[in-house]
Amino acid sequence: MYVPYFDAASSAPLHPVARQALLAALDEGWADPARLYREGRRARLLLDAAREAAADAVGVRPDELTFTSSGTRALHDGIAGALAGRRRAGRHLVHSAVEHSAVLHAAAAHEAAGGTVAEVPVDRAGRVAPGAYAAALRAAPGPTALACLQSANHEVGTRQPVAEAAAECAEAGVPLLVDAAQSLAFGPVPGDWSLLTASAHKWGGPSGVGLLAVRKGVRFAPQGPADERESGRAPGFENIPAVLAAAASLRAVREEAAAEAERLRELVDRIRARVPRLVPDVEVVGDPERRLPHLVTFSCLYVDGEALLHELDRAGFSVSSGSSCTSGTLTPSHVLRAMGVLSEGNVRVSLPLGTAEEDVERFLAVLPDVVRGVRGRLGAPERAEEATAASAGSASGDSGVSAGPAGSAGPGAGGPGAGGPGDEEAELVVDSLGKLCPIPVIELAKVIGEVPVGGLVTVLADDEAARLDIPAWCAMRGHTYEGERPADRGTAYRVRRRA
Amino acid sequence: MYVPYFDAASSAPLHPVARQALLAALDEGWADPARLYREGRRARLLLDAAREAAADAVGVRPDELTFTSSGTRALHDGIAGALAGRRRAGRHLVHSAVEHSAVLHAAAAHEAAGGTVAEVPVDRAGRVAPGAYAAALRAAPGPTALACLQSANHEVGTRQPVAEAAAECAEAGVPLLVDAAQSLAFGPVPGDWSLLTASAHKWGGPSGVGLLAVRKGVRFAPQGPADERESGRAPGFENIPAVLAAAASLRAVREEAAAEAERLRELVDRIRARVPRLVPDVEVVGDPERRLPHLVTFSCLYVDGEALLHELDRAGFSVSSGSSCTSGTLTPSHVLRAMGVLSEGNVRVSLPLGTAEEDVERFLAVLPDVVRGVRGRLGAPERAEEATAASAGSASGDSGVSAGPAGSAGPGAGGPGAGGPGDEEAELVVDSLGKLCPIPVIELAKVIGEVPVGGLVTVLADDEAARLDIPAWCAMRGHTYEGERPADRGTAYRVRRRA
Repeated sequence: MYVPYFDAASSAPLHPVARQALLAALDEGWADPARLYREGRRARLLLDAAREAAADAVGVRPDELTFTSSGTRALHDGIAGALAGRRRAGRHLVHSAVEHSAVLHAAAAHEAAGGTVAEVPVDRAGRVAPGAYAAALRAAPGPTALACLQSANHEVGTRQPVAEAAAECAEAGVPLLVDAAQSLAFGPVPGDWSLLTASAHKWGGPSGVGLLAVRKGVRFAPQGPADERESGRAPGFENIPAVLAAAASLRAVREEAAAEAERLRELVDRIRARVPRLVPDVEVVGDPERRLPHLVTFSCLYVDGEALLHELDRAGFSVSSGSSCTSGTLTPSHVLRAMGVLSEGNVRVSLPLGTAEEDVERFLAVLPDVVRGVRGRLGAPERAEEATAASAGSASGDSGVSAGPAGSAGPGAGGPGAGGPGDEEAELVVDSLGKLCPIPVIELAKVIGEVPVGGLVTVLADDEAARLDIPAWCAMRGHTYEGERPADRGTAYRVRRRA
Repeated sequence: MYVPYFDAASSAPLHPVARQALLAALDEGWADPARLYREGRRARLLLDAAREAAADAVGVRPDELTFTSSGTRALHDGIAGALAGRRRAGRHLVHSAVEHSAVLHAAAAHEAAGGTVAEVPVDRAGRVAPGAYAAALRAAPGPTALACLQSANHEVGTRQPVAEAAAECAEAGVPLLVDAAQSLAFGPVPGDWSLLTASAHKWGGPSGVGLLAVRKGVRFAPQGPADERESGRAPGFENIPAVLAAAASLRAVREEAAAEAERLRELVDRIRARVPRLVPDVEVVGDPERRLPHLVTFSCLYVDGEALLHELDRAGFSVSSGSSCTSGTLTPSHVLRAMGVLSEGNVRVSLPLGTAEEDVERFLAVLPDVVRGVRGRLGAPERAEEATAASAGSASGDSGVSAGPAGSAGPGAGGPGAGGPGDEEAELVVDSLGKLCPIPVIELAKVIGEVPVGGLVTVLADDEAARLDIPAWCAMRGHTYEGERPADRGTAYRVRRRA
């Protein structure tokens, strides 16, 4: 059965050209390219050809391009090598708040080794501001060794101002590493960047191939044990069939993408425009214009992301989510957090090249019922109900709603943490301790109608998503978010009813 | 044209089962196995199946086995993780002198980071002595964090006493990491080892897959940036088609190897026995009994390894060499050095499963002429000529032979470095400075007949191979090697004629 796959940003199915090149190279490219005999020379020719093709697509010279075993390795080893190469210049690392986790992990390792790290913030669209890198370099505690910026965000599709950031870094004499994993299929990365990484399985190439480009003149000191292969930058026996398939498919995908980009952009625009009309209480996130053509992300209020993914999967659609309940770590995606947008019921749709229009239409046809079903099972309020107390407390069985000053709301909500001294105005306290996303927001929505306009609701919650989703809910509903305070258990989030 | 490939120890052609499994998994295993949708679940099933099959072949539990991106990465990361896991116990690392370069590089990195390293010596057959690991652990400057030993040597085929070494290490409470890259196709590694590494392309699996087994209870702290994949032990997107192909082919190869091992052993015995009879001045190296079935190494006096490989390639045979001139570093293989055997004209033959008997016979038929041709072009002495001075100086045109005390041998050989004060006996000095293997040995052989029995020849040479090959030549010829001394340029090697 054909099933539409809408998670190209995680991994793309193998492109036919990749498959063909891989098959051919399996018979020709298995030998050690360092050997002098014919099988080795043949392998070397294939490796050289792959490097030339991939370098051409990236826009560097072949001797500036290294094949690594994955995009993650390219990032880990690229960042470590660039930091070590400039150790004498400084030990400060700058990256945006919405980089791939591989960058964050490399930064954490750098910090653990005594380096310093600063994050460049993004706006609500997930975009770094022009001038932000220049500002971060000026604000650095010491000379900056390296700056990192993705070409486009992997969760919300927002394109970053890479050329501008590269110019700001060049001005300060700091190399910029660009993570081009999400955008390389759609074209080379513009600007005067110093290093670039990518991952072949994102563009329909095989698993097991990453790219690391280091432009001439950039100081680079590979870390870890020495190895003679790939200019000493990527240890281990070369995976020639895979790199050949990666290079061949990148070229093929580029050609198709040139023709496909506009069509996919239109399909994504359709999703961006119609999902909020079809499904109530949805926030579409990411920059609407400066974005990848094929990727769109939205979040659905009062929805459990894991249940939503499960139901979409049952309906035949494979998508991913940045909601906390789907991450295994119980924290929402750091990208959504940095943007300050709703994380519950989060769905990322990333269309592979060639996605049929009717599949997108079918997704739009199916989505409203799927969301309605998940909301119904969670006892989420209908929009009209929110202003009434009709269903308050009926959903999750034990929602701990109590009236009166927060200070008297029982042991879980007691103490000055939830309501300070003198804060004696009438308010409601919702005890959502121990409850996971989206329950705290659902319980808040159910009781907001019980306080008068101008009245206060305090939600006690220990789920990490509440920190993001309660303010986001306030912004969507027009209520005033008055901030959080530590409570005896968890955190007290204060919301003032405005309408 | 079918060409016999005799370098299986470098990389084996892709096994048909690997090819088949890879093809099947390309369509089923490209998605992210961490995702909850059907493509992800399917990928996860394949990954689990691959892990079970590979773990079974290694003899560990599936949760003890990690897929890495290469055997080199398995060694680098396995050694780093095991050392870090036992950092509190100690910072000493013990390994044999004949380990793969990936182990030596990991050890060098450990030393650069402040750790200590000791090499366990091998005998002339390349084998670690029983008790040698116990002795090394006793002699360690502090508590040993990790010991490493290969299951069998990659250059000469000698099997190591792994079970004995593992018992010695276990007795001392030290984990043993076994590099099983060369032997895993022929069966599991016996004994109570703690960690094991291997490389799929060595057994006919695809490139891009290594194995790292870490037995339960072994302290292990992965180094480098965190990553959630492969139990945190191997960062980067899983290469599922390749790991599936690796696991399937390991199982298939094991079955074939059980039937093939004896046949290959007999073919190798034939080479071991007949090469010295067919080709004069050859040393077959490696343990004749305790060895891999398919691998044999020999060295040919007065032969340039690169020329030999080139001629064998022209004759249709792909072999490798540990001679200095084929390594790119101008030093002979550290394995041959540790064994103290001849390195010039070195040839390693490693037969893939299914090697035809007639190909081996054709190799034996071709080899004598090939060696004779290379020797002829180098002006190597015929054996009978060595006792005479007939051809001395005629080969390389400018061989700087001079009679008299070494102290008067001209600017290149002058000074007390080449012949100490009081060392006034009549001797010949051969100036081979600037000449590469095998020329210094050829020049020595040509003049040895010019000194009386009991007389001395001093060779001045700066080629690293001379340090290994002059003593080896003495042993083969029955002359006495009297040691080396630093000279003004290069090193002075002193040989006393015995016959």
